[in-house]
Amino acid sequence: MKRNALSQLGQRIAEPPIAWLMKQTLEHPHIISLAAGFTDNPSLPLTETQELAQRVLAKAGSGRAALQYGASAGDTRLRELTIKRLQQLDGGKAEAPVDRTIITNGSQQLLYLLSEALFDLGDIVIVEDPTYFVFLGIAQSRAIDCRGVKLTPEGVDLADLERVLETLRKEGSLPKLKALYLVTYHQNPTGYTTQLERKAAALKLLKRYEKAAGHPIYLLEDAAYRELRFKGKDVPTALTCAGNERVIYAGTYSKPFATGIRVGFGVLPKELFPIVLRIKGNHDFGTANLLQQILAEALATGAYERHLKQLRARYGSKAAAMVAAIKKHFPAEVVWREPEGGLYVWARTPERLKTGMKSAFFKRALAQDVLYVPGELAYADDKHRPKPNHEMRLSFGGASEKDITEGIARLGRLLA
Amino acid sequence: MKRNALSQLGQRIAEPPIAWLMKQTLEHPHIISLAAGFTDNPSLPLTETQELAQRVLAKAGSGRAALQYGASAGDTRLRELTIKRLQQLDGGKAEAPVDRTIITNGSQQLLYLLSEALFDLGDIVIVEDPTYFVFLGIAQSRAIDCRGVKLTPEGVDLADLERVLETLRKEGSLPKLKALYLVTYHQNPTGYTTQLERKAAALKLLKRYEKAAGHPIYLLEDAAYRELRFKGKDVPTALTCAGNERVIYAGTYSKPFATGIRVGFGVLPKELFPIVLRIKGNHDFGTANLLQQILAEALATGAYERHLKQLRARYGSKAAAMVAAIKKHFPAEVVWREPEGGLYVWARTPERLKTGMKSAFFKRALAQDVLYVPGELAYADDKHRPKPNHEMRLSFGGASEKDITEGIARLGRLLA
Repeated sequence: MKRNALSQLGQRIAEPPIAWLMKQTLEHPHIISLAAGFTDNPSLPLTETQELAQRVLAKAGSGRAALQYGASAGDTRLRELTIKRLQQLDGGKAEAPVDRTIITNGSQQLLYLLSEALFDLGDIVIVEDPTYFVFLGIAQSRAIDCRGVKLTPEGVDLADLERVLETLRKEGSLPKLKALYLVTYHQNPTGYTTQLERKAAALKLLKRYEKAAGHPIYLLEDAAYRELRFKGKDVPTALTCAGNERVIYAGTYSKPFATGIRVGFGVLPKELFPIVLRIKGNHDFGTANLLQQILAEALATGAYERHLKQLRARYGSKAAAMVAAIKKHFPAEVVWREPEGGLYVWARTPERLKTGMKSAFFKRALAQDVLYVPGELAYADDKHRPKPNHEMRLSFGGASEKDITEGIARLGRLLA
Repeated sequence: MKRNALSQLGQRIAEPPIAWLMKQTLEHPHIISLAAGFTDNPSLPLTETQELAQRVLAKAGSGRAALQYGASAGDTRLRELTIKRLQQLDGGKAEAPVDRTIITNGSQQLLYLLSEALFDLGDIVIVEDPTYFVFLGIAQSRAIDCRGVKLTPEGVDLADLERVLETLRKEGSLPKLKALYLVTYHQNPTGYTTQLERKAAALKLLKRYEKAAGHPIYLLEDAAYRELRFKGKDVPTALTCAGNERVIYAGTYSKPFATGIRVGFGVLPKELFPIVLRIKGNHDFGTANLLQQILAEALATGAYERHLKQLRARYGSKAAAMVAAIKKHFPAEVVWREPEGGLYVWARTPERLKTGMKSAFFKRALAQDVLYVPGELAYADDKHRPKPNHEMRLSFGGASEKDITEGIARLGRLLA
């Protein structure tokens, strides 16, 4: 047999670099991982989940609903509570009807469903430079062409977005452009939050190119880290902006509550909702109801909000530990910002100091039992610009404050 | 804007007919649904799940594991317990290593992942006539070409399978043939169970055509209903047969334990495992750990087995109620068989009596507040044979014994 039976996707799909990083963690038992996107272990809501599961299963109504099949779109009460909460955060100004809201297996699944609903082989998505690397993994496997656009601490660089759109127009590739993907809150990997004006302006800009594209161009707003703000003021979603009929909003309860209870949600444009729903039906005909009922109960009883308050304080404290250690140990040439939420600090070394997986620095860090995510992994394979290779994503999510401090100190010694 | 931004898949994907059936149930509040694949509501394991969730969350180790991210392949203990159980059922003769076992969101997700890993547009899968209609939905959305092969109460008709393979060879389409899909236990929709000799012979037959195909041709064994046997003797899986290196085995805990706890599993050929794992990583990087821990605890403590025993007795009794009612109310021209497990009775009317969604009979049944799944929905769009339109799938899973008896009586009056 010369050939395998794989599809083109099956032949194309690459091993995710994160798998290699996770293997390192296992093979180096004493490693301090500032790489993992894992959430804080000690603050996981064990008691809360115990109580919530009890409440859900003690009542015949919610108990049976929890253990039975449901609708592909998700539990109605959870969808309602989700939009209620979204409106509280957005001051009631979001265009977010319950009947266009879908519950998913984390927001990750929604990203995947959208990749199927919108993109054919060779279609284009504009992504931030840098962006969420698992989204890049989806794009790689599905041969979606990613074009990078500059990212500033206030969000997508609008002049650069216009430049990219103009380039696509001149190339005649606008008909292939389906969406702009922005991770708008405490972005993975940079920690940056997109300001509201940027979202509004980006929507306007996309609209201008729709005629040449011949179809809608969506703004896919990934708000996975929104609730993990421990400092500063929340920003309204793109659903509150003019042009919100083009906004796809992806949210999640996994990171703010518990990553083992994988429940995310999406608010979708009218024309996309039935399509995404059908694909979801084929994937799994609905997210596990037990998880949905637990989350609905958490939201309804206030347990979610109470847990979140603790979690924010905890991440705030862990971020402060990382910030203090960086201030103490990193040389002044390393550029970074204090995070206001999320799980990450993004650190830029001078260009001569490469940080990639194959770099001497990465290997020396590993020899010192410290792991970080090389910045290069978060850049799309966009041949229209060189891929930066002198940045690090440093996570304060999983590691203890002691390990964070020690890990940063070791990196600092290597950097010096 | 003239065009939408949908992908070809997005444009192609049809509304599942089951959605329309579910809508009927909602719009006719007094309806007796013999259509739903829902499992029995009163026997859902509320107390058991309460206890299991307590146990899992009371211990810091399993509790944290339950609420944290895990590996894409699934929890190691659950994978081990899964294979242990499979080997118990298969007398230790299955070729099923833990390191080729993946935990999924129900077996449905595995079917989807495989459709992505193996099939390009226009590739071919051979399916039973009739087969599981959600699998046909996946195929429709992904433009996978389904060829129907005759099904007998003992499983796939081998002579007809050979005929189909010969046809594909003559057409020159064997390079597009990737798999034979069999629902081997208490099949949805017929209730038939494939005998071991049939599985072994099918594997042998597929092997003979691999040279002309130029690649492996897999046997995808969907064992979703295996554990729901209430009569007769279990049959070993295709994993116990010669040629098992071509077997993809899909199992699930959802139906035998609780459909709201969606956990399925797959045992995959060596060359497919990493590919399916990567696609799964892009979908959701792992099934929710809380569900996995609950199932692992259920298996380890015997709670799973105890619940299953009750459930089998219950379905046995419901099946008996349906059988008694059919004997009493259906005319002799209607052909059907007593089920030994699963959730369904398959009834064939004389050819002149159409049962399809648009048939007078279906409408009259609906007017009498009785719903069934028209047999036509379970047949692939295979233009190489006419699609039968005179069968019904009658489910005894969701309805009460009283409703089953009354529903069958009403259908019987319409048939007479």
